[in-house]
This record gives sequence, structure tokens and C-alpha cells, in this order.
Amino acid sequence: MTTAPDQHRNGHVPAPDLPDRLRAVRGVVFDIDGCLVLGDKPGGHGGRALPGAVDAVAAIRATGRPVVAFTNGSSQVPADIAAGLRLQGFDLADDEVLTPAVVAAEVLAERYGDQPVLVFAGPGLVDVVAAAGVVLADPDRPTDAAAVLVGWDVGFTRDRLQAAAEAIWNGAPMLVASDARRFASASKPMAGVGGFIAQGLSYVTDTEYEVLGKPSDTAMLVAARRLGVAPADVLVAGDDLRLEVSMARRAGGVGVLVTTGVHGRVPVGEIAADQMPDLVVDALSELSARMLLADATASDPVNAPTALPADRVGA
Amino acid sequence: MTTAPDQHRNGHVPAPDLPDRLRAVRGVVFDIDGCLVLGDKPGGHGGRALPGAVDAVAAIRATGRPVVAFTNGSSQVPADIAAGLRLQGFDLADDEVLTPAVVAAEVLAERYGDQPVLVFAGPGLVDVVAAAGVVLADPDRPTDAAAVLVGWDVGFTRDRLQAAAEAIWNGAPMLVASDARRFASASKPMAGVGGFIAQGLSYVTDTEYEVLGKPSDTAMLVAARRLGVAPADVLVAGDDLRLEVSMARRAGGVGVLVTTGVHGRVPVGEIAADQMPDLVVDALSELSARMLLADATASDPVNAPTALPADRVGA
Repeated sequence: MTTAPDQHRNGHVPAPDLPDRLRAVRGVVFDIDGCLVLGDKPGGHGGRALPGAVDAVAAIRATGRPVVAFTNGSSQVPADIAAGLRLQGFDLADDEVLTPAVVAAEVLAERYGDQPVLVFAGPGLVDVVAAAGVVLADPDRPTDAAAVLVGWDVGFTRDRLQAAAEAIWNGAPMLVASDARRFASASKPMAGVGGFIAQGLSYVTDTEYEVLGKPSDTAMLVAARRLGVAPADVLVAGDDLRLEVSMARRAGGVGVLVTTGVHGRVPVGEIAADQMPDLVVDALSELSARMLLADATASDPVNAPTALPADRVGA
Repeated sequence: MTTAPDQHRNGHVPAPDLPDRLRAVRGVVFDIDGCLVLGDKPGGHGGRALPGAVDAVAAIRATGRPVVAFTNGSSQVPADIAAGLRLQGFDLADDEVLTPAVVAAEVLAERYGDQPVLVFAGPGLVDVVAAAGVVLADPDRPTDAAAVLVGWDVGFTRDRLQAAAEAIWNGAPMLVASDARRFASASKPMAGVGGFIAQGLSYVTDTEYEVLGKPSDTAMLVAARRLGVAPADVLVAGDDLRLEVSMARRAGGVGVLVTTGVHGRVPVGEIAADQMPDLVVDALSELSARMLLADATASDPVNAPTALPADRVGA
């Protein structure tokens, strides 16, 4: 690995047109774990807000840009995640929290209508798709299923595996909330239950699957739809190059890496081209400051401020 | 797919030196399901002997060649499988039945001695390796484990997955009884639980695994050891080109496909070179007849019989 001598301390030099690109952003997606909060469980549950994150989200929202928080965890329903985030100080409504279940609910309703879907997952996924009107298939009649949806399911049994396999052998496509290999927790790495089930089921059925959560194009589309803007006008901030940054880049949006999570600082030579962040920040307050600066610069391009007014940066 | 006009009805013409090769065989491995018996569950449990199979095994044993039966199922202990086969008429002792658990017991004892091994499997595997003296690791202390052994486990829980993942992340190699995708049953295809767990765990740990059951070289070595002969002197008969035939071929032994199981007849053009059988038979009685003929031919090469004496073929 070689790094150029003029690199930023994060091994990344922002492009000269970054202020223009930040100014053009019309909506923002924040990852939750490692970006907004550090916690012990997926979805920020029981965690603590990262320093400056609450104020940074508020400051960005105050610019008029809608915001959502998007976690790949499917073990909790969005309303519970939103409640937890509000306890930590974030001003986020229930429908401003997205999970793969939200994506699945929209996708399943659009693609399959009234046809039954076999859901191999826990309440965080089942309840959300059922509430959205998706018809759940009878596990005793798996060949009726138009599709199989796989998520985080700690109540795995051989019968569930067999039913899902029979549906897929019968031609039902396989959709997966998230196939992450593992998750960080405060104490130790945790095996990704959803990824475990997805790969095992994919193997026994000899069938490829489609991921609905980050970093899929479908996830980006649903997030942009929730924000009411086009995917190319969205900024995605997160701690995972493969999830948030690559999703933003592929849609033509702005990808921001925060070094408060799984990656920390990454030498630029180790980053794949399609995961190269537009911006690396050590805290979300740096992102909000740069966005405010970009906005301010546009309104007075000749006398661009060299520092932000203190009252707009947040605590 | 093209097939040559001079092909046998099975799409396979035995090589001219086949009698010499059969005569040189010093021990025989029979697959169980689809070769000796047809049943509803792995290991021939509750099944029925295939026509002529009991007499064919007896006839081959009567030539002085030791025989074993080898199933890739690890849900039953060998003694139970042997008892079931004896009920169906096969004269097989408990130690003439092999499973991946038998291979695992030998391999684990040789490689790890007194070091603990974490076993992620049901009684068919756990009991056999424990009885052979392998030390079982405490699931609450997974990082003590020198290796992880995965098999058919319908009592899967998230805790077991997490413990196995922690052992593997800690450097323990991953060994797998069988990673079959699915099994035939009398009513329908059944998802391979061992393959499901193996692939899921391999994915979450980002680790390759070693298969101990058929068609591994280790399985062939343990089978040959049980027969008391060299692997190159072993004939393996079974209904699966990928399992029995390829295992025999790689060891330089004789691979025989019986068309009573999963494959039925296979056009030769569809068979990979390393899975090409030395002989295709529609029943094991044809194999025993050919072996007896080969033996007889050697003792009287000039006046080779054109048909077998009826009293040596079996019923």
C-alpha cells in the first residue's frame, strides 16, 4: 500500500467540486450504528449518541433537507428504533427510520400484489411487511409462495428451512434483508444470523438471492422515495464503505465515510474505486459544518467564509 | 450433448482392461442409499433392500474381499445403521458401517489428540466422536477449541452458531461431515441440514472448510484402512457420480455407478472426466457377476467362461 504525500490525515483529499456537490444535496440518509450511535445491538438499541451527532442531524435538517436514518438490522421494527433514537436526543419520526423491512414491504407489494410471500424471519421483518399489507404464505403450503423473504430469525427450525427450500425449488425468487457476515457489538463480534440463513438456504437450493437492504439499488430508491428526492440528489453518511458509500456512489449521490465506526481511518490505497468516499469526516459535526459552509459560499461566492459562524455549527 | 453410436445402453463402454482391474480389487465400499437400499431417511433407515443387493454383497464377500457400507448421513450412529441393514438381510457388522462421524473420530484423534473440539451437530456425530475419545469443547469457552466439527444438527440455535463462529474467528479450522445440498426421500427432496449449516457458518466466518465424508481423500483413506487395503485397491460402488465414483477415481481405485439411485442412466457426454465410472450397472448383481467372471477368467485365461455358473451369481 502506498499513500501520496499530499494526502489528508484520513488518506483522502476531498475533490475541489465538493462544495458544489454538497450544496446540490436534496436529502440525507444517515446510517445508525457507528454513525449516529454506538451501541450493543443493531439499530442503535441501548446505545449512546456519538459526540455531536444529535446537533449535526438537527443542523442539516434546519437547512431544509429531509433526513432519514437507515439501519440494515431487521430484528427490530422501525417504530422501536425511532423511539430509541429519540431517547438519545435525535428528532426523528417513526417514518424517518428505514430498515430492510421497509424496503421489503414496498418491493413485495409492488411486485407480488396479493400473492402470498413466505417470510423466514423474526418479528422485525414479519410484522412490518404484514402491516404493509403483504400476504404471508402458509408455511404448510410453501409451493403457493410467490417469493421467499429471508431475514434475522433466531427461531430457526428445520421445518422452516424445508418450507423455504421447497418454495424456492418451486421457482419462488429469494429476497434477503441483509447478508452481513458479522456485526460489531460493545463486547465482541456477533455472527450475522441473516447472512447465515441466506447463504445456507442459497446453497441448499442452488439459487442466487437479491439483497434488499443497503447497499442495493432498491434500498437507495426506497430511501430516496421516502426523502421525496431523486437518488442522485441524496447524500449517504455511514461508517461502512461497502454499505453506505458504495450505495451512494452507484446512484450518483454523495458518499460520506464517518470514522466513528467499523472502518476508522482507511488508507486511500486500500479503498476500491466504487467505494471511494466523496468525503471522510471524523464526526458528523464536520459534515454539517461543511454543508453549511457550502450553502453559505453559494449565497456569497466572492466572500466565502473561511470559518463557520459558531451559532450554526451546533454544540 | 452427443453420444457415440457404439455406446452401451448406459452410455458407457467398459474399458477392455476392466476384468484385470476388477480382479485386482482387494476391498469394496458400498454406498447405502440408492445402492444397497431405497428408503425414506438417510442411512437406509426404514428402507428396503434393492433387488439382488443382499446376495451381491454376500457373493463379493465370499470371494475373500472385505466389504464396508459407507453413508454420508451423520444423523444416525453406525451401530444403528448396521442394525437396520441386518434387518433388511445384509450381513454387516457394526464396524463395517462407516459414516463421516467415523472419519471424523479418526481424523480428530490423530490431528488434535487431547485438545478440545467444538462439535456443532446431533448425536449421530457427537456420540461417535466422543466414544472414540475425542475431547468435546465447552460451548461456553469456544476459543479453547482446536477445531470445529459441523454436521447434521436439527437443534440449531443462535448460541451454537455464535460459539462456532467465535472458535473459527479464533483460528480453529472448520471440518464438515457432509455438505450435500439435498437428499432424495420417498416423498420429496429434503434440504441438506448439514450443508445449510456448513455454508452459512463458512460465510459468516469467511472461512473455507474441509469435508470429511465422501468424496474426500480422507474418507477414502479411512475406508481403505477399515478394509485393511490400500486406497488404489478399493472398488467403490454407489449411485452418485460426485460422491462414490469421483472418490474412487481420485484414489486410483475402481468407481462403479449403479443406476438404482439419484442419477439413473447418464449420457456419457454429460459426465465430467474425473467422475467417469469404470463400470455402470443396473443392479449390484451385475457387479458381483462381473467380479466373479473376472476372477474365474484369471484362473483359466484360455477358456474364459462366457457366462457365470448359476450357483455363484446369487438369487
